[in-house]
Amino acid sequence: MVCMTRSFPLLYRFHLIACYYHEVMEGMPVSMGGLRTLPWYVAGSQVLGVACVVITGVWMGHYRGGYAWNGSAQEFNVHPLCMVLGLVFLYGDAVLVYRVFRNETKRSVKILHALLHMMALIISIVGLVAVFDFHSAAKIPHMYSLHSWCGMLTFVLFFLQWLLGLGFFLFPWASARLRSWYLPLHVFFGLLLLAMSVGSCLLGITEKLLFSIMETYSRFSGEGVLANILGLLLVCFGVVVGYVVTREDFRRPPNPEEEALSVHFKTLSEGEIPSSP
Amino acid sequence: MVCMTRSFPLLYRFHLIACYYHEVMEGMPVSMGGLRTLPWYVAGSQVLGVACVVITGVWMGHYRGGYAWNGSAQEFNVHPLCMVLGLVFLYGDAVLVYRVFRNETKRSVKILHALLHMMALIISIVGLVAVFDFHSAAKIPHMYSLHSWCGMLTFVLFFLQWLLGLGFFLFPWASARLRSWYLPLHVFFGLLLLAMSVGSCLLGITEKLLFSIMETYSRFSGEGVLANILGLLLVCFGVVVGYVVTREDFRRPPNPEEEALSVHFKTLSEGEIPSSP
Repeated sequence: MVCMTRSFPLLYRFHLIACYYHEVMEGMPVSMGGLRTLPWYVAGSQVLGVACVVITGVWMGHYRGGYAWNGSAQEFNVHPLCMVLGLVFLYGDAVLVYRVFRNETKRSVKILHALLHMMALIISIVGLVAVFDFHSAAKIPHMYSLHSWCGMLTFVLFFLQWLLGLGFFLFPWASARLRSWYLPLHVFFGLLLLAMSVGSCLLGITEKLLFSIMETYSRFSGEGVLANILGLLLVCFGVVVGYVVTREDFRRPPNPEEEALSVHFKTLSEGEIPSSP
Repeated sequence: MVCMTRSFPLLYRFHLIACYYHEVMEGMPVSMGGLRTLPWYVAGSQVLGVACVVITGVWMGHYRGGYAWNGSAQEFNVHPLCMVLGLVFLYGDAVLVYRVFRNETKRSVKILHALLHMMALIISIVGLVAVFDFHSAAKIPHMYSLHSWCGMLTFVLFFLQWLLGLGFFLFPWASARLRSWYLPLHVFFGLLLLAMSVGSCLLGITEKLLFSIMETYSRFSGEGVLANILGLLLVCFGVVVGYVVTREDFRRPPNPEEEALSVHFKTLSEGEIPSSP
């Protein structure tokens, strides 16, 4: 290999770099630090999430005339703020709780997960009412754009996923077998819906910019650049949350308490009263 | 539990449904059929992928005046077709090969994976040249929109990922340790880039519709509805590919040949000639 790559200087340089990294990494665990990097990713996600909410607030508040609830364009401005706050930031944080609260009981974390999703749901309903109100007052047809199709699909699937999550995991209706069947689907659709939320926001940003500043957008106006940056930050938030949730060594360790809880649920669903709470 | 839910008829009905499914599923494996459903998902993904390419072709060919390579709007029309064909359909198929070719040697599947990605890369470069040519000829500024930022980011990351993939997995430059460190990142970024490709296409669809048919889009014109359906089909293609790749029981079984290949690579990178090919 060395002889072969020496005939090609660029390949040989690549080979040397690979050898160097191999040397450096030989003494490190494969996970490259593992759990001790988790707080940095979580902190990064929170900085990104707060930045997204603040930039959306500034965009609508400063460039688009502020907020009101009277069917005007100011009522429309409530829509982006609520969707970014609810369906992206709070949704993402609800997904993260299983990685952040590693030592709390599974039941407490489940309740927090459901509550954060409920807040996300309520805030996004307010955001949807705002845009439907605005469309009705301005006599703009509802649900004609790709943004509205994707956004509504995301919201409906999110609501269904929330109901199924309550039914399967929080209340003792489903058997352990049913729960273990639904869990990977819940996780897959959970991450898919985060991606769809971020994607729908980006479609909304593009729509809003082309409706409002089509002329100056192509001249790199401040509002256009700010909204583009918001789009990239939303993508970064989704990427960091997705990475934290899917990284193998960030997983919550198997907990004996969880097993006990399953038995507890099973006993409950069979109509008996367990001896201990 | 039964006594409690009997006081709430709706809850009791839910409980009965859960019990029924529990009965039905008791006799089935947890994976609900496992591998025998894989061909259906793969076939579904191909139907969706071909539909996306055909609809993009019809949209640009029938509604937007067809194709040319002369700096006109017809040259622009090459852009969406190439991006959907390259960065979505071929990219998605390149991702699927590890699940489709389960019994072929890992090395053959790797080469097919790299070749499909190379085709995706070449076709998307043609698509990028088309839009830059069109912008230059029409004196439209480059790279001002969120679509262009997200699309270019996706393309650059895809090109980097392809280079790193070649260096780490196809050529014998990286050690087994380096490869095992990069593999989960390669998989994560691979799926992320598929999501970003689909998202960038949806942004492009929204831009194109608002530039071309802003007036009739809100009146549910045929072109607008067709392009919205294209957007949803692109999302569905991404979802099916993502589901097939992440589903645990669709994974390629561990292969002794793969282990042998790792040793083979290691020997090669240490400058020795292995005794068997």
